[in-house]
Amino acid sequence: MAKPQQSKKQKSAIQPTRSDDFPEWYQQVIRAADMAENSETRGCMVIKPWGYGIWELIQQQLDVKFKATGHQNAYFPLLIPLSFLEKEAGHAEGFATECAVVTHHRLETEKQEDGSVKMIPTGKLTEPYVIRPTSETIIGAAFSRWVESYRDLPLLINQWANVMRWEMRPRLFLRTAEFLWQEGHTAHETKKEAIEETRLIHQLYEDFLRDHLAIPVIPGEKTEAERFPGADMTLTVEAMVQDKKAIQAGTSHYLGQNFSKAQDISFTDRDGAKQFCHTTSWGVSTRLIGTLIMAHADDDGLVLPPRVAPQQIIIIPVTPKEETRDAIIDACQALAEVLRREKSYAGQPLRIQVDTRDIGGGIKKWEWVKKGAPIRIEIGPRDLESGKVCLQRRDRAPMEKEFIPKEDFIRNVEEILHEIHHTLLTRATELRDSNITECNDIEAFHKYWDQDQPGWLLTPWNGSREQEEELSKQHKIAIRCLPNGLQEEEEKSCLLTGTPTPQRALWGRSY
Amino acid sequence: MAKPQQSKKQKSAIQPTRSDDFPEWYQQVIRAADMAENSETRGCMVIKPWGYGIWELIQQQLDVKFKATGHQNAYFPLLIPLSFLEKEAGHAEGFATECAVVTHHRLETEKQEDGSVKMIPTGKLTEPYVIRPTSETIIGAAFSRWVESYRDLPLLINQWANVMRWEMRPRLFLRTAEFLWQEGHTAHETKKEAIEETRLIHQLYEDFLRDHLAIPVIPGEKTEAERFPGADMTLTVEAMVQDKKAIQAGTSHYLGQNFSKAQDISFTDRDGAKQFCHTTSWGVSTRLIGTLIMAHADDDGLVLPPRVAPQQIIIIPVTPKEETRDAIIDACQALAEVLRREKSYAGQPLRIQVDTRDIGGGIKKWEWVKKGAPIRIEIGPRDLESGKVCLQRRDRAPMEKEFIPKEDFIRNVEEILHEIHHTLLTRATELRDSNITECNDIEAFHKYWDQDQPGWLLTPWNGSREQEEELSKQHKIAIRCLPNGLQEEEEKSCLLTGTPTPQRALWGRSY
Repeated sequence: MAKPQQSKKQKSAIQPTRSDDFPEWYQQVIRAADMAENSETRGCMVIKPWGYGIWELIQQQLDVKFKATGHQNAYFPLLIPLSFLEKEAGHAEGFATECAVVTHHRLETEKQEDGSVKMIPTGKLTEPYVIRPTSETIIGAAFSRWVESYRDLPLLINQWANVMRWEMRPRLFLRTAEFLWQEGHTAHETKKEAIEETRLIHQLYEDFLRDHLAIPVIPGEKTEAERFPGADMTLTVEAMVQDKKAIQAGTSHYLGQNFSKAQDISFTDRDGAKQFCHTTSWGVSTRLIGTLIMAHADDDGLVLPPRVAPQQIIIIPVTPKEETRDAIIDACQALAEVLRREKSYAGQPLRIQVDTRDIGGGIKKWEWVKKGAPIRIEIGPRDLESGKVCLQRRDRAPMEKEFIPKEDFIRNVEEILHEIHHTLLTRATELRDSNITECNDIEAFHKYWDQDQPGWLLTPWNGSREQEEELSKQHKIAIRCLPNGLQEEEEKSCLLTGTPTPQRALWGRSY
Repeated sequence: MAKPQQSKKQKSAIQPTRSDDFPEWYQQVIRAADMAENSETRGCMVIKPWGYGIWELIQQQLDVKFKATGHQNAYFPLLIPLSFLEKEAGHAEGFATECAVVTHHRLETEKQEDGSVKMIPTGKLTEPYVIRPTSETIIGAAFSRWVESYRDLPLLINQWANVMRWEMRPRLFLRTAEFLWQEGHTAHETKKEAIEETRLIHQLYEDFLRDHLAIPVIPGEKTEAERFPGADMTLTVEAMVQDKKAIQAGTSHYLGQNFSKAQDISFTDRDGAKQFCHTTSWGVSTRLIGTLIMAHADDDGLVLPPRVAPQQIIIIPVTPKEETRDAIIDACQALAEVLRREKSYAGQPLRIQVDTRDIGGGIKKWEWVKKGAPIRIEIGPRDLESGKVCLQRRDRAPMEKEFIPKEDFIRNVEEILHEIHHTLLTRATELRDSNITECNDIEAFHKYWDQDQPGWLLTPWNGSREQEEELSKQHKIAIRCLPNGLQEEEEKSCLLTGTPTPQRALWGRSY
């Protein structure tokens, strides 16, 4: 569809732009950064090296935090016996419509006349298996074996794994039939301890999103209608992305004794009596990468916070003349060497690539713009003479160049990376804060959702589950959370029921 | 079954011992070290934290080597459309009997009268999927999209993933229906380059097993009968474990143009003509952990090479009297602190645990013996006074204690860990070398396999595939490989056919 301002549009590397068509822009950013693509397996993506590199960094950095808080990694079966799923009724109903089911364990090959082979499933299983949509039930079975006494508690386990939820409307990273994630599963003596664990991880997720992904979230509790199937309490961190929709970026669940009773995760307490554990579960997934893209990318492509950039600094030799070519490439390599040896960022060695590929400088530059590398450094003949480098930052306009003495760059590189992180975080925080509106009036509430890209509304709320679901359905919204720190506010009249309430609800559309 | 020497047997922590019943000893070592257990999912194991910790170290250390040789990680779908498997006929037949098949993508929940829920698979798929037994076909489909020109080559990809092969006789780590592995997949312009890649990884695996796992292997080529389904050449590293059976520890395959032609992985070459790529694939799996156990564990439990020990040094405070308790625990923590700060092993910080748990000293000590921790340090009241520590090494008898000045221990800790690695490697090498016998005589060959735990036989061999398979079947053996470096030897008469041949084959039983 032709739109005005064609001249302006041609300046951006991604077509369409965010304002043209946000969902399509998102797909094009992923394609331009070469992060992932759809596969022939319905709803499943191929995560390409640049996208997977981001996931590896997320994984490593979260893993350190999980281990520092006493969790250990383990691995549990991919396939869950159907009967396990049946044990916790709410859980079973919650996941039933999304389960891939394994019914056979062999193939028979039939040679066709043309020499090709056709394969038919055989070896029907007595009891089918589902591919784990989440592992509460299979891990609970192990916990039931492992926990005998209060001395075995707390049991603090995490798993890095793939899971599968058959999605009707898949979208790369945000909603795919198979995705990668971590799922923590813990068992505790008391409700108090289990809730403390749930809150600890909730806080860990909030910190991680802010400090590693430069995404400010609104942390809070889900209403009953939005809880994890089988949980007594679900805490969530909600991110606002650039079209002002919400993304549930990470959840931690207090499961009460629902799973421990269904699966007999019990222990002998300090008085010799049998008790059921209080359990928790919590997870983040490759969805974080989708959130990252929608939060920070711009009309020129991906923009990566430095901590999760597979390459943080790209050094590009500019070699117009053959006679200075070798000297320039040497200078680039030497700079990389010094930075790798002497500098670091966030406690890690710098990730630097010297891009000596024999392709056009413009193409090369734009490739790294589109991939979101935080810093590009160019060194050409004149820079070699002057002892300067040309610095370009992904948080600034792509044409903005700064010529600075090489030594200054080396000295300040950590600070520059830190600034880039801070720029992204500040931008995202401003977007979020300027798009959350307090609303006490039901008429204004109804009207608000008519606009093109509504933000979020914060309202006094003590309506029933049914009333919440009706409003949600009417406007294609949901209560994203009851934000932390706002639940004991001055009493105001509930938006809908009019009765006074200290409770505040945050409403919005979501991915 | 009662056996003599009951008094001797009671000295070892693992019952039965290796000589009593090797397969059962293996299971008991895993149980005693708390590494893994069987699950309710047929043939699938739960990998517990101590076992998974070993896998994490294997993974991290291999990953560094893969990246250093130019490979990038990516991730491909778990589910493979059935039609993909049909494309390469040999491959399809090779894996057909082991494939778990997904036929449905929903469950319907039926509430029963007692309030419980029953679930029935619905949403039948038009085309079933198999859970990847290996990913040549699904990765090949991506390669077909990614490769257009010779400029896109070589394409060097690795994936860390779970795979599934329905096993009739599962055994923890060695043969499980689901296992964790890495699979490298590469595409090249020429046969020469693809074979170089195959050999590079073959060498990398040999080095890794020797230098990280202390396992000396015999590297060589598989015969046609033993090749990977669909490969033109399979290289293998074969480990001998303590009952003298072989374990195929890692394989690298040159796939020729078999998969590239079946899946159209083609490119425009330097002359503008269309060519099919030459591809490779290669992998190692959690089977390495089984190999490690069978290679090094003893009648007291697991014995870990330091590089893959989740904890390398266990520091145990010995606190018989309340008044010195705090001082001893402080001394233990201080020692750990110094070691963590000042020392390293194989380029990595030391992994140290101060075990302050309030359980009996004997129980504690044996727990770490059974878990295979390379070094145990005890500090008691007298050591505190004398400035010594009590050193116990897992490569020596469990009762052997050495009292050495603390400063000497700190100074020599890297050397001690290195010595432990070297002891394990030397032992395993001696076992291997003293159990490979040259054999030129078919009568001696037939007779050899009658003994209780035969080793391996090295023979001149130029028999046919049929002859190889007949001999193999007769004695439940196989040609483990045609060892590298022995294939151009002095001509000798083939064991079976009597015709002169420079080729040597290595025969043995295997897991």
